[in-house]
Amino acid sequence: MTDLIAEAGREVAAPGTEIIAATSLSGPASIEGHFDEAMSVLGLVDEILDGPRADAYIIACFGDPGLMAAREITDAPVLGIAEAAMHAATFIATGFSVVTTLERTRIITEHLVRSYGMEHHCRRVRATEVAVLELENPQSNARATILAECERALAEDQSSAIVLGCAGMADLVRYLEDKLQVPVIDGVAAAVKMAEALVGMGLKTSKRGDLAPPLPKPYRGKLSAYSPKGPALIAS
Amino acid sequence: MTDLIAEAGREVAAPGTEIIAATSLSGPASIEGHFDEAMSVLGLVDEILDGPRADAYIIACFGDPGLMAAREITDAPVLGIAEAAMHAATFIATGFSVVTTLERTRIITEHLVRSYGMEHHCRRVRATEVAVLELENPQSNARATILAECERALAEDQSSAIVLGCAGMADLVRYLEDKLQVPVIDGVAAAVKMAEALVGMGLKTSKRGDLAPPLPKPYRGKLSAYSPKGPALIAS
Amino acid sequence: MTDLIAEAGREVAAPGTEIIAATSLSGPASIEGHFDEAMSVLGLVDEILDGPRADAYIIACFGDPGLMAAREITDAPVLGIAEAAMHAATFIATGFSVVTTLERTRIITEHLVRSYGMEHHCRRVRATEVAVLELENPQSNARATILAECERALAEDQSSAIVLGCAGMADLVRYLEDKLQVPVIDGVAAAVKMAEALVGMGLKTSKRGDLAPPLPKPYRGKLSAYSPKGPALIAS
Amino acid sequence: MTDLIAEAGREVAAPGTEIIAATSLSGPASIEGHFDEAMSVLGLVDEILDGPRADAYIIACFGDPGLMAAREITDAPVLGIAEAAMHAATFIATGFSVVTTLERTRIITEHLVRSYGMEHHCRRVRATEVAVLELENPQSNARATILAECERALAEDQSSAIVLGCAGMADLVRYLEDKLQVPVIDGVAAAVKMAEALVGMGLKTSKRGDLAPPLPKPYRGKLSAYSPKGPALIAS
Amino acid sequence: MTDLIAEAGREVAAPGTEIIAATSLSGPASIEGHFDEAMSVLGLVDEILDGPRADAYIIACFGDPGLMAAREITDAPVLGIAEAAMHAATFIATGFSVVTTLERTRIITEHLVRSYGMEHHCRRVRATEVAVLELENPQSNARATILAECERALAEDQSSAIVLGCAGMADLVRYLEDKLQVPVIDGVAAAVKMAEALVGMGLKTSKRGDLAPPLPKPYRGKLSAYSPKGPALIAS
Amino acid sequence: MTDLIAEAGREVAAPGTEIIAATSLSGPASIEGHFDEAMSVLGLVDEILDGPRADAYIIACFGDPGLMAAREITDAPVLGIAEAAMHAATFIATGFSVVTTLERTRIITEHLVRSYGMEHHCRRVRATEVAVLELENPQSNARATILAECERALAEDQSSAIVLGCAGMADLVRYLEDKLQVPVIDGVAAAVKMAEALVGMGLKTSKRGDLAPPLPKPYRGKLSAYSPKGPALIAS
Repeated sequence: MTDLIAEAGREVAAPGTEIIAATSLSGPASIEGHFDEAMSVLGLVDEILDGPRADAYIIACFGDPGLMAAREITDAPVLGIAEAAMHAATFIATGFSVVTTLERTRIITEHLVRSYGMEHHCRRVRATEVAVLELENPQSNARATILAECERALAEDQSSAIVLGCAGMADLVRYLEDKLQVPVIDGVAAAVKMAEALVGMGLKTSKRGDLAPPLPKPYRGKLSAYSPKGPALIAS
Repeated sequence: MTDLIAEAGREVAAPGTEIIAATSLSGPASIEGHFDEAMSVLGLVDEILDGPRADAYIIACFGDPGLMAAREITDAPVLGIAEAAMHAATFIATGFSVVTTLERTRIITEHLVRSYGMEHHCRRVRATEVAVLELENPQSNARATILAECERALAEDQSSAIVLGCAGMADLVRYLEDKLQVPVIDGVAAAVKMAEALVGMGLKTSKRGDLAPPLPKPYRGKLSAYSPKGPALIAS
Repeated sequence: MTDLIAEAGREVAAPGTEIIAATSLSGPASIEGHFDEAMSVLGLVDEILDGPRADAYIIACFGDPGLMAAREITDAPVLGIAEAAMHAATFIATGFSVVTTLERTRIITEHLVRSYGMEHHCRRVRATEVAVLELENPQSNARATILAECERALAEDQSSAIVLGCAGMADLVRYLEDKLQVPVIDGVAAAVKMAEALVGMGLKTSKRGDLAPPLPKPYRGKLSAYSPKGPALIAS
Repeated sequence: MTDLIAEAGREVAAPGTEIIAATSLSGPASIEGHFDEAMSVLGLVDEILDGPRADAYIIACFGDPGLMAAREITDAPVLGIAEAAMHAATFIATGFSVVTTLERTRIITEHLVRSYGMEHHCRRVRATEVAVLELENPQSNARATILAECERALAEDQSSAIVLGCAGMADLVRYLEDKLQVPVIDGVAAAVKMAEALVGMGLKTSKRGDLAPPLPKPYRGKLSAYSPKGPALIAS
Repeated sequence: MTDLIAEAGREVAAPGTEIIAATSLSGPASIEGHFDEAMSVLGLVDEILDGPRADAYIIACFGDPGLMAAREITDAPVLGIAEAAMHAATFIATGFSVVTTLERTRIITEHLVRSYGMEHHCRRVRATEVAVLELENPQSNARATILAECERALAEDQSSAIVLGCAGMADLVRYLEDKLQVPVIDGVAAAVKMAEALVGMGLKTSKRGDLAPPLPKPYRGKLSAYSPKGPALIAS
Repeated sequence: MTDLIAEAGREVAAPGTEIIAATSLSGPASIEGHFDEAMSVLGLVDEILDGPRADAYIIACFGDPGLMAAREITDAPVLGIAEAAMHAATFIATGFSVVTTLERTRIITEHLVRSYGMEHHCRRVRATEVAVLELENPQSNARATILAECERALAEDQSSAIVLGCAGMADLVRYLEDKLQVPVIDGVAAAVKMAEALVGMGLKTSKRGDLAPPLPKPYRGKLSAYSPKGPALIAS
């Protein structure tokens, strides 16, 4: 799935933009709930602190886990794919539906919808009951199931665009646009372009207020290596 | 002012992006109220219908006048600078203040804030009582007045970024960032980068629903030349 | 249609109230979208500036186009028929449905619902796909289609009143009330009575703040005749 | 105070409108809290059930106590003066402040503001700490205190109109308008005109749904005389 | 029904908590509308003023009638069963449905949902058209009807818990939990436990602001005995 | 601080309630930002999975970190102290202010306020710039600073109760109540009593929907021991 995501990013990247795709070294194989989300943050933090320094970071999971924490530990822009996709959608449609994977993750997306101020733009979040890892299985009928849900969305939700609610759906954009004849937005592509936009404007995460570097303090036990030491923690 | 705006756009444009700046041939010299806004739409429509065809259009007035009308008559993305700036701001700060020109235009910005779902991100819209055209006058103390209002915003609004509420402030970004040490977002630059992002993703305005081409029908009198003839009106 | 609207107004007008009905001399024959709305404002402004001076003005299109612009250029009360109908409905029912014409105009009404604070009172906006001009065609089955949609509204929306979402439906009030046995509110009638109410209270549009006369400034090209000259523009 | 209220109503009433002013025969001399409000409903109900039958009823207390209960027991329109004043204000100003009596009643007004969907139009509710009955005392400096609060409202709240938050302030309208040069809205006058408007449109309270007559059932003890007997209770 | 309610309370009460159940001596036999609600407050007030002094009071009607009035006349905590049930539900489910009695009372519950800030937690209020008094009739099929509505709620509302919308449903909790396998919350039990919680924390109703004792003033006529005499009225 | 928190819990616990206080074995010494919050979840999860099994769990940090994740891995009720305190406050005051530690954590509390539906009840969140660990330092003037902020809250926010925005303030309740003469609510005490209430009602976290046990799947690297194995993970 990391390859698929990298490919989706590279397809839209501007000349000169290098996409470095990283699979978290620790944490869930897929993220399908609050617990998975919470436990995925450690691996994300590891990538930012230990991985290659980037001009911007993208969290390629539609729940945008760890977004605010990540923004504290670097001043490079950090984007979630859900927020990137939803913001992009508002520019080309007055209403969109999110088509996502499992019913149980819908509440997470709905919480993001409210956090991002998308209550009026996002007409409905729809679950397909296609599990994240099933998306990779060519034998599954995931593609047909997702298409059918998108069609229901257009018929019932007063939406005029579709936001794909999982990074693993990135390769379905063209297929669905052909079938549906409305804009279909993949968060990975949206986040890459939004990241380029922010970097191009010279914008960095504000370090005034709640996104300032973590205050220096000791962390105990298994996490002692993460003890913030002040600004030096950023991009260590 | 058109030159200043073009310059602000070109400064951030990616290689290969051509900025075509147009001054409306009919309408108000500056836009500072509901009437100015409504009367500015005709010139905007003229530009889209008669001007050079573009991959995306930017309405370089912070009130985003005519945004929805413009989206009906072309399938190229159309962006307002207020919406572009506010959406960009949400990626790099959890709260921002808008610093704009006249007190009387504040209600227009506040209406946009609600339309765009920015109630929680936009902490306050602040007027400086600097008139739009005064921004071009090097003898005025517009610059100092705006800086002072930005400083008050940071001190009082729990904001960690500034959105400049007028296209005519585009040349103040670096000056203000140096002084304030927080991100300062100009809508013109933001709109150029967001437009590039949408074009780069291959996204066009959805033609399903309320942004479909205007229905064919006769327009009377002075406006008969604008009678929609169906999809052919687009990019005529 | 102008005659029908005038008739609807005269039917409810108090003794002494004179209804002057004007068809816009420039602009769309019917208003069914964002572009139609934007292009209709010029004719509206012409009527206010050049037509007979009135004690109050009513914009007899359910999208309330140009409402704020109109309020700047006169101190007589200006009412939209959508706002008048919705406010009236709140006094006699705890929930209402709007039954309107085309699906594509629904988003415009929904935006008004939010602007006017009617989110809790307006339970749903329902489109009938009856075009505005079809309402005038006695051969069409517009009447039956609208009745059927009203019946669905009462059955499904928890509404106890109907707001008619088009000035062209004004002559259906008694017919629908007989069939539905709930209040049916036509915006034209509502606006006439609300206008009488405001005039009777001696209330005029506040000229403090954003509804003050447009600031004096030159308008270019085709619109140069509209250049605001300060308060003198009002009721010129 | 009943005379003052009647006078305020008669001043704006249309020819042919008869104002019947009634002082509640049981209940608080003034209404300044939740308990006063709740206890005032009995007298209100008595007036509607036993008093002269009217074409419309007005509850002349700014908390609109008993509004929904009253709407169940008659099909004539029932208006609260707070709702009438706030709705009227939205037609002539984009923002208003309410200037009311005691700090402790502010929460009641703020609750009405939300119930009526006025969150965006009502910029602030301001208490003067002038008690209701003090308004009748010519020796008090109530008038000056209220003027000063209105001036603060205009200076600080971005409001362009004032809504008077107590029926007992009805005689201050002209005085305050002269001083403030903005619209000042008295709820009694507004309710009279709105009532005329509704009656003029032939609108009655919807009897479908929650405002239908109270279901027949026995009431116990002191209230047994109020036992609803079905539709017959209306205008008994 | 009072016995059933008392039983529901005693079943969950902690050792040492005494439940004193009182049937209102005046007012409606059941509460199924705005008028019933308003008229029930007198009996509630009588109970608080004349009944045995309690450490906390519970208003065992799901509309929470008279809640704010009651909080003024005592400093012991006063709880409504609707608010207690809804707040309790938020701790054990991210979304709940309310299953209540009559369609016409739904608007009352929906108003409470907004007042209590439960718009996001309460997914839907569902009426069963089972009248309150029918709940006591063993021959009725109330139980089956309510179960069926709960099942629809779980299938359609994205809810994961049920709040019972009537005190008279208190004895259905175990039956419904067995059938539905989700938490089912009865407001009487919730209010008893919340009351114990508040008393256990030593919390009393704040007497600063709008819940202070009613201001001393004469009440007229039938209600003269209720004239507030200042703080002494509390727990007289 | 763990002792202080345990003490605050025991002080209000009912007879028979055992308070087991645990300091997280891994993670930040105090929680003052998004990163601290995210990194504190691992230790919380360890406590629930490996610690003594409890009838209910309390997360004694005012940001309620990890609340939803924790609710997935056990069916015992899990309470955050912020949610418990805010919900408790609504029962005894119509408006409250939160007085918390650092300015930078205010955004976290404000996000909780919205998530919990407390926008209307919580009038303002106030920072004191007292660091969490400073609360334990008897030499600091934390106590006076907090008292002063509470006094400002009562004077300026229209609040009638105070919610303490940090577990480390638990020992200030009586001191502040004496000084302020309004209810002061500590989240630890509130959570203990709310937990007792839920357990007393026999309520458990709903396992239908998003709080069901984490789906079985492999976790990689450092977190492989946390791989959910289905329901068996609960209370392992």
